[in-house]
Amino acid sequence: MVETQDRSQTQPARLMDGTALAGRITRETSAAAADVLRRTGVAPCLATVLVGEDPASVTYLRMKQARCAKAGIESRHVSLPASTSTAELVATITGLSQDPAVHGILLQHPVGPHIDERAAFEAIAPEKDVDGVTMHSFAAMGFGLPGFASCTPGGIMRLLDAYEVDLTGKHAVVVGRSAILGRPVGMLLLGRDATVTYCHSRTVDLPSVVRQADVLVAAVGRPRFIRGEDVKPGAVVIDAGYNPGNVGDVDFESARHRASLITPVPGGVGPMTIAVLLEQTVQAAARQLGLT
Amino acid sequence: MVETQDRSQTQPARLMDGTALAGRITRETSAAAADVLRRTGVAPCLATVLVGEDPASVTYLRMKQARCAKAGIESRHVSLPASTSTAELVATITGLSQDPAVHGILLQHPVGPHIDERAAFEAIAPEKDVDGVTMHSFAAMGFGLPGFASCTPGGIMRLLDAYEVDLTGKHAVVVGRSAILGRPVGMLLLGRDATVTYCHSRTVDLPSVVRQADVLVAAVGRPRFIRGEDVKPGAVVIDAGYNPGNVGDVDFESARHRASLITPVPGGVGPMTIAVLLEQTVQAAARQLGLT
Repeated sequence: MVETQDRSQTQPARLMDGTALAGRITRETSAAAADVLRRTGVAPCLATVLVGEDPASVTYLRMKQARCAKAGIESRHVSLPASTSTAELVATITGLSQDPAVHGILLQHPVGPHIDERAAFEAIAPEKDVDGVTMHSFAAMGFGLPGFASCTPGGIMRLLDAYEVDLTGKHAVVVGRSAILGRPVGMLLLGRDATVTYCHSRTVDLPSVVRQADVLVAAVGRPRFIRGEDVKPGAVVIDAGYNPGNVGDVDFESARHRASLITPVPGGVGPMTIAVLLEQTVQAAARQLGLT
Repeated sequence: MVETQDRSQTQPARLMDGTALAGRITRETSAAAADVLRRTGVAPCLATVLVGEDPASVTYLRMKQARCAKAGIESRHVSLPASTSTAELVATITGLSQDPAVHGILLQHPVGPHIDERAAFEAIAPEKDVDGVTMHSFAAMGFGLPGFASCTPGGIMRLLDAYEVDLTGKHAVVVGRSAILGRPVGMLLLGRDATVTYCHSRTVDLPSVVRQADVLVAAVGRPRFIRGEDVKPGAVVIDAGYNPGNVGDVDFESARHRASLITPVPGGVGPMTIAVLLEQTVQAAARQLGLT
């Protein structure tokens, strides 16, 4: 078995500071965006697409746009009525994919039950899929090929690297299997030579699997679903939960006394997602403008 | 934990007869191919592409072509010299992707170290990717979307279904993580609600993981790599190994006294691969000819 430190109920875990790391990445991204502008006369541009007027989505998009502006990334927003059909949405996104002035495309989801979200995602050209939602991007993560990561999984990998977590041979347990979080982060961990277990709502005796995790990624969207007593002593705990009241998927207070490293909520994984989105937008622009 | 039967060292496992199941599927495929021909005047057509003259590849392709002929599937063979460049191979495959008389495309691999195999695979149109090697097909397996399975993983799922193995909540352990076998079969098992663990050469203490497997898929390409003593009593053992001398990845003689179901080598997974290839070719033809 992988050796772990025994920290049972004594020294609390070191916090993985996503706010600080995201800040560092965003400063580098701002410099890179300025470099793109200086060398080409063109600022990187992220197109955002929103269907309907869900208040949470509106707020979230405004935050992304503000962060873009601060980093020197232009944003172009397309707002569509809730009644938009799949065909109309696909046509809009296809237009953005073909528009050379747009370097990255973000479709805010959910898009509403009457729309074929997959068809909409697939209208994003792979080289503009800075949010990492297309089938191409998933397969690139799965095969270790060049491409954009889904932003939260990409952010999780950056956090693990920043804290020098050696993943080779470690048992990584991913709880949750969503298309933009659980599944891709498992693929990224596998690509880094971890032994990877995917758990989910149908898993029998989840605690017995969680207790084996050298690296635990909680991505299930249920508040305090992972109990501290099930965290392996010395484990690295990544909480990608985002539940109401700023509560993660892990019971932080009990888990921090067993983990060696743990992400707080908020301030852990959360800030990383936008940082990776901005970084990938500037990378996409640099590539499309012939700089890399 | 999942309940399993205790068969320790007594009653040998039931064999999963891939030869019989493949025969059944191929008879259905022959009938479906005849139906396509009758309704459209066109026989399903599989294009095969071989680079160089590797004797094993030549033999394997001839077998596939003979099986196609027997099932009423035309095959069109393109033989390219070993010196073929990536660009030439991509151009050839792109031509087949655009040719309406070709319904499925199989690029025999390996293609030689000087060729970018991924670029060649990606020249296969997703609707003709009956061998399930493209990024699109991988993502379709990963997300449970319509698309073609990689043939061996698809064959494994057919075997599990034929023997009525309930996968929900079971712990499936996949040993091996190749792009056309380990990774996709794990995704297919996850899509069927198994808890899935990927193991590989860097996994620490592999036996301790294997011992947890309710369903074990050995896809590592090392003869008798999995010892019977590490098979959980009552487990379902799928041996996708294909080593010299018709030896699988599992030590069959010792494993069969612990497993409840096990695939023999040969006659287990092997025959399923071509059966799925033929079946998917006829499905592709039916779709492209407007029948489904």
